[in-house]
Amino acid sequence: MRRVYLDHASATPVRTEVIEAMLPYFAENFGNPSTVYDLGVKIMEVIDEQREKVANLVGARAKEIIFTSSGAEANNLAVKGAAWARRNKGNHIIISAIEHHSVLNSARFLERMDFEVTFLPVDGDGMVKPERLSRAIDSGTILVSIMHANNEIGTIQPISELSAICREKGIVFHTDAVGTVGNIPVDVNELGVDLLSLSGMSLSAPKGIGALYFRDNLRLMPLIHGGIQEMGRRAGTENVPGIVGLGKAAELARQELSDKAKHVRQLRDLLVAGVHERIECVEYTGHPERRLPGHASFCIEAIEGEALLLMLEQEGIYANTGSACASKALKTSPVLVAIGIRPDLAQGSIVFTMNSSNRVEEIDYVLEKFPLVVKHLRSFSPIWRRNSAA
Amino acid sequence: MRRVYLDHASATPVRTEVIEAMLPYFAENFGNPSTVYDLGVKIMEVIDEQREKVANLVGARAKEIIFTSSGAEANNLAVKGAAWARRNKGNHIIISAIEHHSVLNSARFLERMDFEVTFLPVDGDGMVKPERLSRAIDSGTILVSIMHANNEIGTIQPISELSAICREKGIVFHTDAVGTVGNIPVDVNELGVDLLSLSGMSLSAPKGIGALYFRDNLRLMPLIHGGIQEMGRRAGTENVPGIVGLGKAAELARQELSDKAKHVRQLRDLLVAGVHERIECVEYTGHPERRLPGHASFCIEAIEGEALLLMLEQEGIYANTGSACASKALKTSPVLVAIGIRPDLAQGSIVFTMNSSNRVEEIDYVLEKFPLVVKHLRSFSPIWRRNSAA
Repeated sequence: MRRVYLDHASATPVRTEVIEAMLPYFAENFGNPSTVYDLGVKIMEVIDEQREKVANLVGARAKEIIFTSSGAEANNLAVKGAAWARRNKGNHIIISAIEHHSVLNSARFLERMDFEVTFLPVDGDGMVKPERLSRAIDSGTILVSIMHANNEIGTIQPISELSAICREKGIVFHTDAVGTVGNIPVDVNELGVDLLSLSGMSLSAPKGIGALYFRDNLRLMPLIHGGIQEMGRRAGTENVPGIVGLGKAAELARQELSDKAKHVRQLRDLLVAGVHERIECVEYTGHPERRLPGHASFCIEAIEGEALLLMLEQEGIYANTGSACASKALKTSPVLVAIGIRPDLAQGSIVFTMNSSNRVEEIDYVLEKFPLVVKHLRSFSPIWRRNSAA
Repeated sequence: MRRVYLDHASATPVRTEVIEAMLPYFAENFGNPSTVYDLGVKIMEVIDEQREKVANLVGARAKEIIFTSSGAEANNLAVKGAAWARRNKGNHIIISAIEHHSVLNSARFLERMDFEVTFLPVDGDGMVKPERLSRAIDSGTILVSIMHANNEIGTIQPISELSAICREKGIVFHTDAVGTVGNIPVDVNELGVDLLSLSGMSLSAPKGIGALYFRDNLRLMPLIHGGIQEMGRRAGTENVPGIVGLGKAAELARQELSDKAKHVRQLRDLLVAGVHERIECVEYTGHPERRLPGHASFCIEAIEGEALLLMLEQEGIYANTGSACASKALKTSPVLVAIGIRPDLAQGSIVFTMNSSNRVEEIDYVLEKFPLVVKHLRSFSPIWRRNSAA
């Protein structure tokens, strides 16, 4: 059976070049980078080379990159680490209402630790309005965290405008760029951010590796305490093969970025146009233009997202409903609620995410099967029959 | 040139069987385990199989194992996670004075967060006395963390005696077993612990993976907040290849444990006897019997440990001085200070750690070269010349 995988935001196969780069670091070059002898010193040099490659992808300097075990860990380190390091300056944090769970639940944890958190609302396209941010800031605000692009609706935030407001007031600005790095150009200086999280997974590097950019020796309380690895900001023996994989993936992503973006945008536009043409009562969620190039998200009326996924799977088509984390954790997506989608419509959420490996024929196949699946599911839906009759 | 690697506690090559087990999980079986479709569901099953294998190695049940990115992360999660989850019951924590930096600095962090920490002294062999622990406990004590075996001096603590004291009083007991799992039999029920940390590195699994055992749904505040992965105790997409590697390594470790222990004990005893025979003014640190089987640690008078390491490296011999983390972080090892070694003698610390791959001939080679290196370094040492003259 044909397999059309359109859930690249959840997971993506590790590239052959990346696996090959990693392999020598399991058994051959196995030294602990913290040791003083040659076997360790060489590994530390290799790690620093990868730091440079990751830095190059986001316009940073090597010494501003910390390796973490995931995008989620990078987000936790950024939010908790920056908040705790500034506890004497204030206790107010601002995040958007549509942050990834790793930012959202880090902020909720800090609330229990005597911080105050403002959850900034977004408009119907999922955009944070700069004037809203300005109004939310008070004299105790020490940190703002607003994601670069949302994984469920694809909307890209006006980060440079938002960060400028914070910079002026000396407030640390973090962005979760897990969804954007490797998909659109990301430059920490253009964005004007102090902290930026990224994940290996988004770059076809393996699971288990991520990174955090921190500007100019920015103080951070470590999340993982212990030794002085990663400039004293993240303890634990370095995941050397994972770091090498991320370095290679970052190097490739930088070379291929514009071709990839062009390719997936074309596929996405085909899919969106085809869905609108062939399926009635569909809402395209998120910003229509300011969104990730390979990202299409819909809410399908009178259908349950999980049933839709499982029926599509029967046809060999893989997609997602809401964020990968949310799919098992929550019934109604808080992101869709935040952009004002009716709860019943939010149930019918579906997200397609593409990468370079996808082909036009695959989109054609989805456009052939997807309407049939929707039609079939709607034939069982009492809501659909009632609405159609009305 | 010959290479004799005796620093297995710092890092060890990943075994071929482990690499082979991991390989299919980079590109072929790449699904996100949190997704609802078959590609994800299958991966979740694979993860649970590995949980079972790791659980088997330590006498636990699969649902009591959380995967982390390292032993250091497991220690942080255990100490901070258990303390925060019990903040309403008390704020007093007890750790030994010779804990790994990941436990020590987690406790110091909690001190800044309004917890109180007692650092239990150890005797000259590095042992925590049960009566000392009893005396340190007060009505506000919520957590005790005492490592199973120390990485610098090899001493194995009387964990079951220590944990019994805590169990009686309803105090959570954690042990850092990074040094013991895979080297001696470890059973969470025999040890009577509520939390136990282990690291993939100690099992010839790759860097970047560890695990935490938690008894019976024990409450833990997550260290990494986000989605509900790892029974809601550790967020972030699972490091699937790393988890598969750890599972395979745990399976192999269980089969080979007794042979390995016997083999490395024999090599260690050879080394210790030979060193005492051929080098004067040497102190064998740690407990003479209750210690890790493949672990020999010495303090060599009138010599600087780092110089010793680098001279041994010239002969192709790799060893360590203190813990891997400490070697770049600190001048005098707090562990050696805690067991009452004079600061000048503590400078001459050297640690040899062995695994199954080491051979008798390698120990013979070390016993040939090590005394020559010591003699050579002492010939430049004013302290040595002064002491010899006296």
